[in-house]
Amino acid sequence: MSSEESNSNRKMARQNGIVQPLLTDLYQITMAYAYWKSGKVNDVAVFDLFFRTNPFQGEFTIFAGLEECLKFLENFHYSDSDIQYLQQTLPENIEPEFFAYLKDLTCKDIRVSAIEEGSVVFPRVPLLRVEGPLIVAQLLETTLLTLVNFASLMATNAARYRMVAGKNVSLLEFGLRRAQGPDGGLSASKYAYIGGFDGTSNVLAGKMFNIPVRGTHAHSFVTSFSTLEDINSVIIRHAETQEPCNLLELAIEWRKRVSAIIDISPEEASDGELAALISYALAFPSGFLALVDTYDVKRSGLLNFCAVALALHDCGYRAVGIRIDSGDLAYLSVLARETFESIAEAFKLPWFSKLTIVASNDINEETILSLNEQGHKIDCFGIGTHLVTCQRQPALGCVYKLTEINGQPRIKLSQDVGKVTIPGHKEAYRLFGADGHALIDLLQRSSEPAPEVGQKVLCRHPFQESKRAYVIPSKVEHLYKVYWKDGRIHTMPKPLHEVRERVQSSLRTLRQDIKRNLNPTPYKVAVSDDLYNFIHDLWLQNAPIGELS
Amino acid sequence: MSSEESNSNRKMARQNGIVQPLLTDLYQITMAYAYWKSGKVNDVAVFDLFFRTNPFQGEFTIFAGLEECLKFLENFHYSDSDIQYLQQTLPENIEPEFFAYLKDLTCKDIRVSAIEEGSVVFPRVPLLRVEGPLIVAQLLETTLLTLVNFASLMATNAARYRMVAGKNVSLLEFGLRRAQGPDGGLSASKYAYIGGFDGTSNVLAGKMFNIPVRGTHAHSFVTSFSTLEDINSVIIRHAETQEPCNLLELAIEWRKRVSAIIDISPEEASDGELAALISYALAFPSGFLALVDTYDVKRSGLLNFCAVALALHDCGYRAVGIRIDSGDLAYLSVLARETFESIAEAFKLPWFSKLTIVASNDINEETILSLNEQGHKIDCFGIGTHLVTCQRQPALGCVYKLTEINGQPRIKLSQDVGKVTIPGHKEAYRLFGADGHALIDLLQRSSEPAPEVGQKVLCRHPFQESKRAYVIPSKVEHLYKVYWKDGRIHTMPKPLHEVRERVQSSLRTLRQDIKRNLNPTPYKVAVSDDLYNFIHDLWLQNAPIGELS
Repeated sequence: MSSEESNSNRKMARQNGIVQPLLTDLYQITMAYAYWKSGKVNDVAVFDLFFRTNPFQGEFTIFAGLEECLKFLENFHYSDSDIQYLQQTLPENIEPEFFAYLKDLTCKDIRVSAIEEGSVVFPRVPLLRVEGPLIVAQLLETTLLTLVNFASLMATNAARYRMVAGKNVSLLEFGLRRAQGPDGGLSASKYAYIGGFDGTSNVLAGKMFNIPVRGTHAHSFVTSFSTLEDINSVIIRHAETQEPCNLLELAIEWRKRVSAIIDISPEEASDGELAALISYALAFPSGFLALVDTYDVKRSGLLNFCAVALALHDCGYRAVGIRIDSGDLAYLSVLARETFESIAEAFKLPWFSKLTIVASNDINEETILSLNEQGHKIDCFGIGTHLVTCQRQPALGCVYKLTEINGQPRIKLSQDVGKVTIPGHKEAYRLFGADGHALIDLLQRSSEPAPEVGQKVLCRHPFQESKRAYVIPSKVEHLYKVYWKDGRIHTMPKPLHEVRERVQSSLRTLRQDIKRNLNPTPYKVAVSDDLYNFIHDLWLQNAPIGELS
Repeated sequence: MSSEESNSNRKMARQNGIVQPLLTDLYQITMAYAYWKSGKVNDVAVFDLFFRTNPFQGEFTIFAGLEECLKFLENFHYSDSDIQYLQQTLPENIEPEFFAYLKDLTCKDIRVSAIEEGSVVFPRVPLLRVEGPLIVAQLLETTLLTLVNFASLMATNAARYRMVAGKNVSLLEFGLRRAQGPDGGLSASKYAYIGGFDGTSNVLAGKMFNIPVRGTHAHSFVTSFSTLEDINSVIIRHAETQEPCNLLELAIEWRKRVSAIIDISPEEASDGELAALISYALAFPSGFLALVDTYDVKRSGLLNFCAVALALHDCGYRAVGIRIDSGDLAYLSVLARETFESIAEAFKLPWFSKLTIVASNDINEETILSLNEQGHKIDCFGIGTHLVTCQRQPALGCVYKLTEINGQPRIKLSQDVGKVTIPGHKEAYRLFGADGHALIDLLQRSSEPAPEVGQKVLCRHPFQESKRAYVIPSKVEHLYKVYWKDGRIHTMPKPLHEVRERVQSSLRTLRQDIKRNLNPTPYKVAVSDDLYNFIHDLWLQNAPIGELS
């Protein structure tokens, strides 16, 4: 697996040809010039990358995109054509030495600490801490935000679908056609898998990231057949005996027998549909999963499917199941399951009652919750638009804020307290209770000693003086590792399947009430007493002179 | 321009390395095998690509993405590694000849007719008509949808922002950091420009597509300066005389004079902010556009900006303006304009009253409409998240439906009449009235003669018998051109800036009530009497036997 993964990583590096230093906002480059011109080349800065609110009205977020950030740092370099473009684009009087400076720029003096990819994360706790030359650290802002924002949003969205669907249901990502651009589709497939999906319909994502791919056929396949004469060949060899079997004759015979059991006349069923399903079964006798809603699930699709599945069984093959792409999914899945059970009983074929039922029409979190309440019989959801575009909230608002320069803390004040930044070089710890659940995330100044197991720690709300509590942790997790240092990757990011496992193990450390869909309890993020005082002293120093606002 | 454009096209072809045949849903390939296996290699089909509902609760859509579709067709080819991946991924018993067949597949027998890119388009009227071998045409589905859906959604969104902002306001796309993946960001920049934006902050988009790029500086630039001592150099040479000027001394002097006029004490203004603005002005004396809301627009930012702008003027330069990124944008823009006007009058500098005011905080269509009502004084909006993720509706629902196979029409029935497809090979015409406005889009069977100017045409609702009207067009536009034929581009797609002009000229043909934001009038899409009867005869033939549903 690991060699396949590193292979897929190389492929990704090629794909990510557009993730380059010019994939940024122009103001990063104009600022770089203004810094350079004002002699700030040797200034060193600390930036925090964090978000302020969890997406989807939830109380947690999954951090993703770290591996792509590291690849970006590794490849950070302005090409000759980039420099030429910037020379044409920036004002004429830019000093030429600045372009020479840009030309030689790399991330060799940058250090990036980050939370492990796939972890649950919370507002205000920096996901990435970027330290190093002010100009370089500033130049990384937009691209890092682009790489983290959508990856984390998608992984979070997928994890939420996984939670509402439960563990026993398969989830497939079917969203490529509705994604925001080709790469939006690839990212969606990758981070949906990380967030807990089981596979994707996106073949290129399967190839690039080694993700399972799934798919059967569309309505157009069914409508391309009109009559039974449209079938080209009807003969299949028996799986064991290799005897030729006439699948058409068998299916027509079975359609009569099944129609008697489920009380539907075979005349009501579409012959074009039967022809299509037979043709599909001939191509995929071991993987026969049929779309049954092209005409009418109850009176045509189910009957035709069962006829072909039973005919296949005569030839030594077991069908896989059906997909329903329209209508009342709860009702139709129950109807299908009952039909399968009747047939299982009538023909003494117990496996028939367990056939897979896939549903795939405009499904979102609410649809799944509603289907759960109605007692659906669906084994697998195929989810597209709502998943891949994160329709409920299509952007995560990560920001990248200066917190220290040349060892001096910086605070960004705002009339909106929620937008005040937490200054200085900080560490983050997750404190766990005796039952293994995460209790609180604690930000401290980096100069403070880490909290200790069994020792009480004063945890304070960063801005509200009255909100504070002592916590005695049973376990303390330091959230940051150094991932980038001395111009290269310092800690290897985990491969895809381990990040995927990390999502589930990290989610398990959260109490259920924090994860629930309706009115979840906020997880607490606190600051140490020392950091609290540090913030508020600095706030006071920076308070405006004049009237109260 | 045209050589630059073709240069940017080549760059795009490289970027679009991920737009390849495997960027598709697996079921396209499983269907291809089932078709191949059932002897349908020589079947020919017609597919229509269309949407059913306009996005954003509007009544029009801008068609975009055609150029990228043509590039995809041009490069359509399964590589050896693609074939190898498919061999590993598909079931074991796939006949090896199928992979040999795939290996040789190209789009040489495909013909694509389309509406001109940048045109206003409407529900049910096919944007693309794809004809050719059933298997190949089917294999194109997902990728064509991916390329058209987001491009058209973005261009439509941008065009809507342009309409509410009016012609005299500049619009800049600032959304890269919140976009759905790096390519989501690039596509957003490109199609926002096509839809009517004036530029982007995205430097790579500027380089690749030759779009104007814009940007100044961020809050972090301001907070990186604490005191006036943080300024490295203070000397700038006069634009004409080349005499050295001390920008700091001049700015401090001007800050006193301005503070008297606008009744703000200079002690209230941040010295760190002044230091930052002076440093920025030294770097960009001809392009000085300053962010003024880091501390307090009224009591710090405006005062500091005016001081530096007036100091620059002493040195022979004219400042550009300010950007406001928080707070009450209507109030603050009016305050800024009044301040500029007071200064213009006090110091006899009329140009000062015309300084540019840029606003850029979480702006969407509704914000602009509300600011319009409040009489804002903003010259330029920088728009990010809502624009690039199309937050109000993050996906366009284009579909790709089989309408004919081997000359036989196909209809997809549905209990939802809105989802019934219009069968057969069709042409589309736009009929215009004497005043130049588009009256109606008319779908006809391809065998029918085109509508003629001055001749009355019966236009019918495709599904409601009672809805029909005669129209006498003053102009008839045939909406389709053949863009792809005989394995190559048959009509060259227009370059970016012409597509951008096409959007505006096409929008001008729509009546205002169709374009308005609130309760717009639906534009009519009709079918000819012949097509109406054709649909309904076919519908009847395909009606299910049994109970009424």
